[in-house]
Amino acid sequence: MGLSQRVESAIGAAIRQGQGDSAPAQLASALEYSVTPGGARIRPTICLSVAMACGDDKPALSDAAATALELIHCASLVHDDMPCFDDADIRRGKPTVHKAYGEPLALLTGDSLIVMGFEVLARAAPHDCERAVELIRILGKRTGMPFGICAGQGWESEETVDLSAYHQAKTGALFIAATQMGAVAAGQEAEPWQELGARIGEAFQVADDLKDALMEAEQIGKPAHQDEANNRPNAVSELGVPGAVARLNDILSGAIASIPSCPGEAALAQMVRKTADRLVPTAAAQYAAE
Amino acid sequence: MGLSQRVESAIGAAIRQGQGDSAPAQLASALEYSVTPGGARIRPTICLSVAMACGDDKPALSDAAATALELIHCASLVHDDMPCFDDADIRRGKPTVHKAYGEPLALLTGDSLIVMGFEVLARAAPHDCERAVELIRILGKRTGMPFGICAGQGWESEETVDLSAYHQAKTGALFIAATQMGAVAAGQEAEPWQELGARIGEAFQVADDLKDALMEAEQIGKPAHQDEANNRPNAVSELGVPGAVARLNDILSGAIASIPSCPGEAALAQMVRKTADRLVPTAAAQYAAE
Repeated sequence: MGLSQRVESAIGAAIRQGQGDSAPAQLASALEYSVTPGGARIRPTICLSVAMACGDDKPALSDAAATALELIHCASLVHDDMPCFDDADIRRGKPTVHKAYGEPLALLTGDSLIVMGFEVLARAAPHDCERAVELIRILGKRTGMPFGICAGQGWESEETVDLSAYHQAKTGALFIAATQMGAVAAGQEAEPWQELGARIGEAFQVADDLKDALMEAEQIGKPAHQDEANNRPNAVSELGVPGAVARLNDILSGAIASIPSCPGEAALAQMVRKTADRLVPTAAAQYAAE
Repeated sequence: MGLSQRVESAIGAAIRQGQGDSAPAQLASALEYSVTPGGARIRPTICLSVAMACGDDKPALSDAAATALELIHCASLVHDDMPCFDDADIRRGKPTVHKAYGEPLALLTGDSLIVMGFEVLARAAPHDCERAVELIRILGKRTGMPFGICAGQGWESEETVDLSAYHQAKTGALFIAATQMGAVAAGQEAEPWQELGARIGEAFQVADDLKDALMEAEQIGKPAHQDEANNRPNAVSELGVPGAVARLNDILSGAIASIPSCPGEAALAQMVRKTADRLVPTAAAQYAAE
């Protein structure tokens, strides 16, 4: 099974378990709607890639880790799209969950996906209890308060923002979780994998800034030029397009250099580079080459 | 330490850990606001009472279970109070979280509390990994989809409602979790404790119907007469007040009879009876005595 198929299969199984046989039908339907069709599935892909680089000796744990990450990520998209935050109509090229199902079910969909993330990991515990608990611990830390994506979103309600804490929590947290959970699922320590996750998160942030500046809504499946419209600090306004592309490449080189020694180190470096190519919009690559 | 003090101390410690030293200040403040002052803390009290009846050999696990239950319960109150659900202004005698902090922070407070519930259990795992994972599994099942309080709330968006599934998920789920988690924290099987939780949940539902019908807003700290106003099916409209009080007593007798054999069986029966006395509004007791 290819990596992408493995990710989809694990996410699909988790959603079916959450839907059950006698659940409220609309909420059950919204759960599936909110995770399909998938975006790049970048967090679970990173997680599985790290697990495989570390030997992937308990594939069920790696699958659970990858799935849990994507469920939490989708939960955050559903809640962030709601009227009290971004009030977004479109996500991944189709109506957002609250547009399709209404606000109450969007709120519950996010809540259910968060819970499901932890359940998936608890169900994998028979394969290795200590690893499962460590996975739950990392996922919790990088999702909630004070270090997770909830904290990241919470910074947006503050008058004075700690920009570094904001970016690390809002974008970085789930990438750190992705590399650390991949390693832990395969029996490795979490700590040495933090830097790789943090750097991929930074790269992702810069790439997102580039996409927002250079691409149109139909290409990215959500409203474009939002940073400029909302006067948000971003890499393109600070560095210009060529500067932002150069910064992205610097970060990725640092990411690759930070990969801890492991059996699949070379393949993992290649994956990071490939992810980078997918992240950088063609327009930006052309811009940089000129 | 008394039981109530033990509950408050464990909840306070969890919130402080979630606030950290460098979190967004308003969200950190909203976390504490949302769990204090406590209501009856009835779920954690039941959980600890069951754990103590079963020997409470790992008090840190029992504390974590009790805390996790209350955090999830508070999360559900914060989200249910939001404008897209009950649009409530007052809870526990003070402004609801979205009234005090705004909708974005209320949404994030609920999300953070859910995550924190699972984190608290994962942090207690060094005391017994298998028990901790079983606690996480039960909490997840009774919080999310298809059987948990999210499912219960989800039924409210359906045109045709499975009333039994609705009540068991909406009100019963966290009481089942409370008895089962208390037992599991103390090393017992979960299954024999399901009936006690389910019956306490039913009793709670009937008591809530009585309170809604008989008491005024200032006495219950939230709007009264909502069932009548919204034409919701409830025990008082079906059975009348004396009938509902009789039904409540029947359920509680059944609850006490269902308590599995355990060292603290007698004390636990007393706790259930005492909880019942607290649940029944004085007005209803007088009504029934007349």
